[in-house]
Amino acid sequence: MTPGSAALGHVRDRVDRALQAFVGQQRGVLLAAGDDLRPGADSIAGLLAGGKRLRPAFCYWGWRGAGGPDCPEIINAAAALELLHAGALVHDDLMDASDTRRGQPSLHRQFEARHAGRGWHGSAGAFGMGVAILLGDLLICWTDEMFHASGLPGDALRRGRPVLDRMRTEVFAGQYLDLLGQAAGDETVAGALRVVEFKTAKYTIERPLHLGAALAGAGPDLAGPGGPRAGGAGGTAGDGGTAGRDGSLAAAYTAYGLPLGIAFQLRDDILGVFGDPAQTGKPAGDDVREGKRTVLLAIARSRATAAQAQVIDRYLGDPLLDDAGTAEVRAAITGSGAVAECERMIGRHVREAIAALDGAPMTGEAREALAGLAVAATARDG
Amino acid sequence: MTPGSAALGHVRDRVDRALQAFVGQQRGVLLAAGDDLRPGADSIAGLLAGGKRLRPAFCYWGWRGAGGPDCPEIINAAAALELLHAGALVHDDLMDASDTRRGQPSLHRQFEARHAGRGWHGSAGAFGMGVAILLGDLLICWTDEMFHASGLPGDALRRGRPVLDRMRTEVFAGQYLDLLGQAAGDETVAGALRVVEFKTAKYTIERPLHLGAALAGAGPDLAGPGGPRAGGAGGTAGDGGTAGRDGSLAAAYTAYGLPLGIAFQLRDDILGVFGDPAQTGKPAGDDVREGKRTVLLAIARSRATAAQAQVIDRYLGDPLLDDAGTAEVRAAITGSGAVAECERMIGRHVREAIAALDGAPMTGEAREALAGLAVAATARDG
Repeated sequence: MTPGSAALGHVRDRVDRALQAFVGQQRGVLLAAGDDLRPGADSIAGLLAGGKRLRPAFCYWGWRGAGGPDCPEIINAAAALELLHAGALVHDDLMDASDTRRGQPSLHRQFEARHAGRGWHGSAGAFGMGVAILLGDLLICWTDEMFHASGLPGDALRRGRPVLDRMRTEVFAGQYLDLLGQAAGDETVAGALRVVEFKTAKYTIERPLHLGAALAGAGPDLAGPGGPRAGGAGGTAGDGGTAGRDGSLAAAYTAYGLPLGIAFQLRDDILGVFGDPAQTGKPAGDDVREGKRTVLLAIARSRATAAQAQVIDRYLGDPLLDDAGTAEVRAAITGSGAVAECERMIGRHVREAIAALDGAPMTGEAREALAGLAVAATARDG
Repeated sequence: MTPGSAALGHVRDRVDRALQAFVGQQRGVLLAAGDDLRPGADSIAGLLAGGKRLRPAFCYWGWRGAGGPDCPEIINAAAALELLHAGALVHDDLMDASDTRRGQPSLHRQFEARHAGRGWHGSAGAFGMGVAILLGDLLICWTDEMFHASGLPGDALRRGRPVLDRMRTEVFAGQYLDLLGQAAGDETVAGALRVVEFKTAKYTIERPLHLGAALAGAGPDLAGPGGPRAGGAGGTAGDGGTAGRDGSLAAAYTAYGLPLGIAFQLRDDILGVFGDPAQTGKPAGDDVREGKRTVLLAIARSRATAAQAQVIDRYLGDPLLDDAGTAEVRAAITGSGAVAECERMIGRHVREAIAALDGAPMTGEAREALAGLAVAATARDG
């Protein structure tokens, strides 16, 4: 076991148990409204059983790095991020018309099939969509409930709250930019990277670390509308009204989190085209089938020969893409040199992230865990 | 001006200003992610400019009734409910494929038109759906942000939090039951009333009152999974861990809120078929066109002659319903006696709601305001 998988495993099991306890309690509230809600409660529980718990892990180590003690309360607060993530995935799968998630049918497809199987009235697709919207909304709302019922002191929650707020606005803004770029046909690497900054780097790594730090009294200054930005004035300590700030720790988390987030997304981009379905929980070549506008594809386009570009254009967004087509697209992307370029970028960004931990005002244990997490989150075996 | 409209107007103007200030600040956060977010911010501001602010009014008077002082902080906390409501409406319009909201194109239609007008890539419908999902999510998340930044003391927020949580789980559960009943073809009056209990009565009236009361230290006991139920053991005071409970006030709010919620929905049902578009902000007969499974329609079906039932079945859910069809359906529903029956039910439920205020431990000013609100919320002129 690498230090990274140990750092992840240490948190994951406890996050799993916290989520199970929370969802079990919510099941009672749902069934009080009607026994018909059982399939919804079951689908939510099934979805939450999967996942690597990356965001809770970063939140936990953000807290520990700021000197917070190991305790069940921080696990509860960190686990709440997994509810937000599950809700966002349900809505994302709906928007992308994805058929699978974590090796199971996506939630809207589950309820579409239920409708079709029972011969109910109306459109099965509309029913699946409606249930997915509502259960995603529920999960997103439960984030706040679990966070505030975590057992952390009121002062800590008050410090963490603005970070959680900012994180959510940023992730939905990033997804909106993604939709818009896809519609408007922005195929530039710069456009794809801007989406990655908001939709992945801040959401998956920087803000969870900041949330942990803020809960422990060392959060970022969010007084300005945009907050700390990559390569900008990020992390200058300010006083936006919360106690116990430590600008230099929050700045180190930004300097670690943003490049690592890009590396993480690049790995995900590669897995989305080349990954093994048993590992990704998605069919082979799914990103190509769904026509996702990834950084990998933007780089491939920018480097492709005319013949390679033609292959990519022919299959991108083709819902009927088969194994032969997937193989052709893979060859074109690899042939363009985009995969090698992405691997170089991953290596460079991971080194940059780990270097940002040097000399940062955090505990040695947290520094080691975060260095391990950087490697684990971007490893070829996902 | 009636006492009810005065009680509503008193709160509405201040809620409007609080929402404007909050949304103005969020616009800055969104634009920091990219100037492309401007149309999204504009649509949100446009949607939030409308609305009767009923839920904030009930929250405010729930607080005042429990002895809370008039202050800007309770207005901020109450206004947060309007963000939840706006997000739920955006998602609701998408699920119902509604074209209009508050006299404007619904949000998904706005972005569908934007996509079509610019000749962007992909499906305009999918783009409109994606933007509506994301902006709805944002609004739902902002509920918590505005609530916690209201300026109310931490103790008050801690008491209010579980009520807000319960309210959200209940409303999404109610919407799920609605979808399910529609799909499974449940056309009973009892089925429609169960949906109304969760989707309208608790969400619009009972829980906003409970939230105000809990913020002021007189909230309901939510220790059981279902909480107080209409006609059940509702309102028995318990000690679920929050301070300063006053079971009899929370019970009075339930006894007022649940029948009033049913009356409010019945009025909405009548307006949805017979209302003037200038007043409802929706085209004439929109509920019929969308095939909504309302209590009014369930009563009409249960009383209709074979000929009347045939007319209702022919037009219900017909997206091409025109003025002549609307007139036919109206005649069939009226002829069945369902409208008169609904009017009788409205009158009976409003009287029951107002009677529940008698002798309840609340300030005289709040009792008068709530009696006025009961009339205003169910009046024929909407």
